Amino acid sequence: MGGDHAPAVVIEGVVDYIRENSRDTTYKIILVGKEKEIHKELKKYRNIRLDRLEIVDALEEISMKEQFLSYWRKREQTSIKKAIDLVRDMKAEAMVSAGNTGAVMALAKNGLGSMKNIDRPALATMLPTLKGNSLLVDVGANTESKPHNLVEFALMGKVYLENIIGIKNPRIGLMNIGEEEIKGNELTKAAHNLLKQLDINFVGNVEGRDVYIGEVDLIVTDGFTGNVTLKVSEGVVEVMLSMLKREIMSNIFSKIGFFFLKHSLKRIKKKLDYSEYGGALLLGVNGIVIIGHGGSNAKAIKNAIHLSYKFVTERVLDKISDEIGKMQKSLKELKYV
Amino acid sequence: MGGDHAPAVVIEGVVDYIRENSRDTTYKIILVGKEKEIHKELKKYRNIRLDRLEIVDALEEISMKEQFLSYWRKREQTSIKKAIDLVRDMKAEAMVSAGNTGAVMALAKNGLGSMKNIDRPALATMLPTLKGNSLLVDVGANTESKPHNLVEFALMGKVYLENIIGIKNPRIGLMNIGEEEIKGNELTKAAHNLLKQLDINFVGNVEGRDVYIGEVDLIVTDGFTGNVTLKVSEGVVEVMLSMLKREIMSNIFSKIGFFFLKHSLKRIKKKLDYSEYGGALLLGVNGIVIIGHGGSNAKAIKNAIHLSYKFVTERVLDKISDEIGKMQKSLKELKYV
Repeated sequence: MGGDHAPAVVIEGVVDYIRENSRDTTYKIILVGKEKEIHKELKKYRNIRLDRLEIVDALEEISMKEQFLSYWRKREQTSIKKAIDLVRDMKAEAMVSAGNTGAVMALAKNGLGSMKNIDRPALATMLPTLKGNSLLVDVGANTESKPHNLVEFALMGKVYLENIIGIKNPRIGLMNIGEEEIKGNELTKAAHNLLKQLDINFVGNVEGRDVYIGEVDLIVTDGFTGNVTLKVSEGVVEVMLSMLKREIMSNIFSKIGFFFLKHSLKRIKKKLDYSEYGGALLLGVNGIVIIGHGGSNAKAIKNAIHLSYKFVTERVLDKISDEIGKMQKSLKELKYV
Repeated sequence: MGGDHAPAVVIEGVVDYIRENSRDTTYKIILVGKEKEIHKELKKYRNIRLDRLEIVDALEEISMKEQFLSYWRKREQTSIKKAIDLVRDMKAEAMVSAGNTGAVMALAKNGLGSMKNIDRPALATMLPTLKGNSLLVDVGANTESKPHNLVEFALMGKVYLENIIGIKNPRIGLMNIGEEEIKGNELTKAAHNLLKQLDINFVGNVEGRDVYIGEVDLIVTDGFTGNVTLKVSEGVVEVMLSMLKREIMSNIFSKIGFFFLKHSLKRIKKKLDYSEYGGALLLGVNGIVIIGHGGSNAKAIKNAIHLSYKFVTERVLDKISDEIGKMQKSLKELKYV
């Protein structure tokens, strides 16, 4: 039921996935939501393998705008809560939602708990850069972080990039103000000191300006700064496009110009729209949780299901836990955990 | 000697200021830098009132890229250091520089000290928004802040906006993640609680996305977050323009489009370029310090001198000190200072 165009596009994405993987019998998709509405949507399609589908009825939903954690927890019948319960009870191996990010994140942290060896889960998202993409961790799962949390974020991001995206030994940067090692606040100075002693490809501090240059594969930051980074970026893109619209409508020359540049501008908008990048991953909880953007289309849903399947088959959670476990020996030697 | 085009554009700005204020005898401009170079530049102009000018020779300069504070302090002969000494020794009432922001800020904090009633100075900068401008404080004078520091930032910004920009009772927002009062980290939660109890126009939390919307006149944040906000914004604008260039060169249609849209795009670039907004103000030190952007042109220099004159005649420093003094009674009652 999650997302701006649910349940229609969610079902469409699921149907596309089933059709593309018609010979695969190693998966099952559980649709959690209002059963009647789901059936109504499914009737639009013919010739799909219903044996790959299961429906779990959920009477309520959490809207995209709701902000009240205390209220979410009380509602046992929401589709988000029920889906998380399925993962918790091992009736599902992963969860995909295009619903309210805050609600999925909070309920998943609460319902699933942290993985073994992980102190704090983190929300990760891919950002478009001039040279490809970078992963930013944490974009808001935590409001306060300690130095060893930033190390965990780095390791979780590293395992994800290596196993799911296929980037070997990813370049890891620490978001900071100023490039010198001595720059920053207490948190970043201590985290820098830890990261540089670990056996990872740590390239040092990166500044806000470097985020979209793409010289690193992974940027580690506390959840407050990461969230501000993400939202400021969205704001700048929106304002630039608004200004452009205003300018274009202001005279005949710019209208002509727009006519010719239209497709280029659309491509840029698409490239900068982080919703195109499949939303966010909640790393470090006891379960696979993929949170698509609210504006996800059918293709985004289909890709998110693909991603969750790969997460399961590549045993990414186990690998994260192993990696952190190994690293905690080093952290203990550094007297940090 | 500061800025990318010094000393030529600095002198040009000074000459323009003198010409525009030819009947005013209430000011004097002290040029601090390499005397020979200054004389050489001044010779390019005729009919300027040299009685409004004074030159203080400085043998060295700090380059725009230098990042080493410890090194700056040792060099007594740099133009930045000498200009700050003039303010400290009350031989000048204000300082304007287009030089290395970090160096001016650090040397000014160190050389001038904090104003009475101010715990921590802050760096403030104007940002362009859809509805005009907003002032962002702090953008990097401090790496760590306490709740009462954020209150100081709010009050200093308020006095500046009221007296220099002419905005009565400016709307003040607190940069946070999430709009609800209970959202955020320990710092923002405590600062929110303080700000809402003071006799100011506090409108609550704003998110990164709201920065460029322009619903508030003043956004208060810690120096780490403020610096990241500023630099991420610069990064996004740069990347968007790079992508646009790449797209434009990719085919003949977009080249035609660009031809017609050229002027619109230039206007947007100018609007979003925060260097157009006169750089930054160091609020809360014992002296007036205005730091123009490194790329300042003559007009920006002239405007910065105007601004510094207004700062002096409007007695902004005294007003800031008074305002904070008054507010500290309330803060003491709230048991925060």
